[in-house]
Amino acid sequence: MEKNSVILLIIDGLGDLPTPKTPLQAAKKPNIDRLAKEGITGLFSPIKRGMVPGSDTSHLRIFGYDPDIFYPGRGPLEALGVGINLKEGDIAFRANFATIKDGRIIDRRAGRIETTEAKSLEKYLNTRIEDVDIIYKHSVDHRGAVVFRGPKLSDRVCDSDPHIIDSSIINSFALDKSPEAEKTARILNRYMEYCISVLSKAEENKKREQNGKLPANALLLRGAGTYTPVPSITKRFCIKGVCIAGGALYRGVARYVGMDVIMLPSKEDDKILQERAYAAVKATNDYDLVFLHVKGCDNAGHDGNFEQKKKTIEAVDRNIIPIIAKSGASIIITGDHSTPVSRKEHSGHEVPILIWSKEERKDNVKKFDEMSCMNGGLGHIRGKDLMPIILNILKKAEKYGS
Amino acid sequence: MEKNSVILLIIDGLGDLPTPKTPLQAAKKPNIDRLAKEGITGLFSPIKRGMVPGSDTSHLRIFGYDPDIFYPGRGPLEALGVGINLKEGDIAFRANFATIKDGRIIDRRAGRIETTEAKSLEKYLNTRIEDVDIIYKHSVDHRGAVVFRGPKLSDRVCDSDPHIIDSSIINSFALDKSPEAEKTARILNRYMEYCISVLSKAEENKKREQNGKLPANALLLRGAGTYTPVPSITKRFCIKGVCIAGGALYRGVARYVGMDVIMLPSKEDDKILQERAYAAVKATNDYDLVFLHVKGCDNAGHDGNFEQKKKTIEAVDRNIIPIIAKSGASIIITGDHSTPVSRKEHSGHEVPILIWSKEERKDNVKKFDEMSCMNGGLGHIRGKDLMPIILNILKKAEKYGS
Repeated sequence: MEKNSVILLIIDGLGDLPTPKTPLQAAKKPNIDRLAKEGITGLFSPIKRGMVPGSDTSHLRIFGYDPDIFYPGRGPLEALGVGINLKEGDIAFRANFATIKDGRIIDRRAGRIETTEAKSLEKYLNTRIEDVDIIYKHSVDHRGAVVFRGPKLSDRVCDSDPHIIDSSIINSFALDKSPEAEKTARILNRYMEYCISVLSKAEENKKREQNGKLPANALLLRGAGTYTPVPSITKRFCIKGVCIAGGALYRGVARYVGMDVIMLPSKEDDKILQERAYAAVKATNDYDLVFLHVKGCDNAGHDGNFEQKKKTIEAVDRNIIPIIAKSGASIIITGDHSTPVSRKEHSGHEVPILIWSKEERKDNVKKFDEMSCMNGGLGHIRGKDLMPIILNILKKAEKYGS
Repeated sequence: MEKNSVILLIIDGLGDLPTPKTPLQAAKKPNIDRLAKEGITGLFSPIKRGMVPGSDTSHLRIFGYDPDIFYPGRGPLEALGVGINLKEGDIAFRANFATIKDGRIIDRRAGRIETTEAKSLEKYLNTRIEDVDIIYKHSVDHRGAVVFRGPKLSDRVCDSDPHIIDSSIINSFALDKSPEAEKTARILNRYMEYCISVLSKAEENKKREQNGKLPANALLLRGAGTYTPVPSITKRFCIKGVCIAGGALYRGVARYVGMDVIMLPSKEDDKILQERAYAAVKATNDYDLVFLHVKGCDNAGHDGNFEQKKKTIEAVDRNIIPIIAKSGASIIITGDHSTPVSRKEHSGHEVPILIWSKEERKDNVKKFDEMSCMNGGLGHIRGKDLMPIILNILKKAEKYGS
């Protein structure tokens, strides 16, 4: 049965450089290649040619939101992603548990503390300083988000996270001369002291130390941003969207633009990838746009692990594609940026893209990879092109003129 | 040895129209074609599709400077190029020696006066009128630059150069109603009279006349522009750049954006092209971006000389490419615009571009010419795309978002 909906599969960090093959070229991916053969392909610059996208700005742009206008900073996106219901004017941060000793950070991940244990520390970290309510919510491993809610705050404050070990926690300071920034920096510093004080006394940390583990006895904040609600994709494009992603950031960007979120585990084994695929197929009954995210390729790229990146592509091919290809929905596959294994970081190289849809044309490209897609019928498209193309497939594009 | 630097070879006026072949198609250029075969290619519009670029705006755009914002007019670029250290607020002009007789211009190049002889006239042309210091500096042949330095000046004045012969020198006038423009036009006219007076009396001109040559007894000014310093490429992009070019304009644009300049002769015979190539290779040790310029193709295009344009391409292939290809640096080859021999002027046709770098992908294009590059993996890129692509190759691109 054909459905008038789009499954947008974003394989994070998908693009690569040839060494001499790219992971996409090396991977066995008969199902993706079939979609490429039956569909139309091209190369995709999420922001602009050559520009290195962050995952946050790239996803915003993919969903039709110009980051120059709509980017709220990383903090609010993470906070939305961990499930905090932000209010206008909230200041949000990304937060890491860390281990400090004699005033110095000795581990920025608190001995790679596990999710369950870290979550049990959540209860200590909500407080009120001056007239500001502070909310901590945990996501996975050592990660979480913090929100400052109160009058006269600003996001123009320095991170308390020094981003390196063997340093002390940074005494935050205002990045402009406003009283709001001064106040926020002051509260941030008092909150850092508060966290150290309650976490040092926490039973959970005492147990960790008894078991030879590093205590999660400090919290580090970074990526301050102010939350301002933005018009949803439903309001702007008349479509309903839903997100199926493991990471808080992706869920957060989706919530920020007014998508619903289907909560499935963050781990990405065969079983969970299949669960995501089934959930996506089911969601096509209720949503125009189903945003399905896979993180593994980006992690492998950051680790410089060619084999792992290749295997992740093969796992997506095996576990996701056969299921979603039967849904009757149109399918778009691309990445939010390249993360070449030779660089171990995001790069500005284009990402292959394919569209498999009765509402699109076909080209002569037979395989889905960086080189084959150079000859694709879509040509070279940019982030800002994608939502109009999606709306056109959905027959939801508004006519310009009459 | 691999180097993290880029040699950007701009072959001025490179692109052409097929008659039935283009000079690039007709030229024997095995070295350039090897780079095309091993690299990635495309077509390049320095400004916008179909738009006819000037050499000044095109180079600015190539270096990452939007001419709509940063273009200071031709005068300041030429003045920087001849080595004048401009100060903020200076008004600069291009200057030509000319021959006048009975108040009419009879030769706009003063009988094609040669560099050495023209340079000897430099000493007469520095003066002070009202409260304005006037600096003349010579470049090559009949060309030079003039700078007005003083309070309350404006570039909104008409050229004194009528751009045709058999006309008198134009009595410059203000192009707006500001007292600054009125003052500048007045000084310009007084300076024109001053030049005629000192040049007519000059020993050098008397000798020229005795030898049956036309005297350089007048100076014509055009292209007024106000110099305002702009943030350098080092400040904006965190890269160090250097220019190896024969022409004042190219050196001037490079200085304007904060590049260093390596001074080598303007002539472009085999030996000097090789010298430029060796200088470029040496410069890759100290600079991220080495801008290497060759002018000959544009001159041949303006002359409508197909053979000469073809020969210039072959000379570049023979003298420059083998040397720079051994440097370990990434190489980009393109032009600043097309100068079709059939038109004898700049045109808005795209220029072929190739990138040969370990930090870029490869495509299936085997030759470097206007038609082969239509199938290139870079697609159709614009001037504003080039600096982000260069920064991405250099791994100096800043991530947009996080």
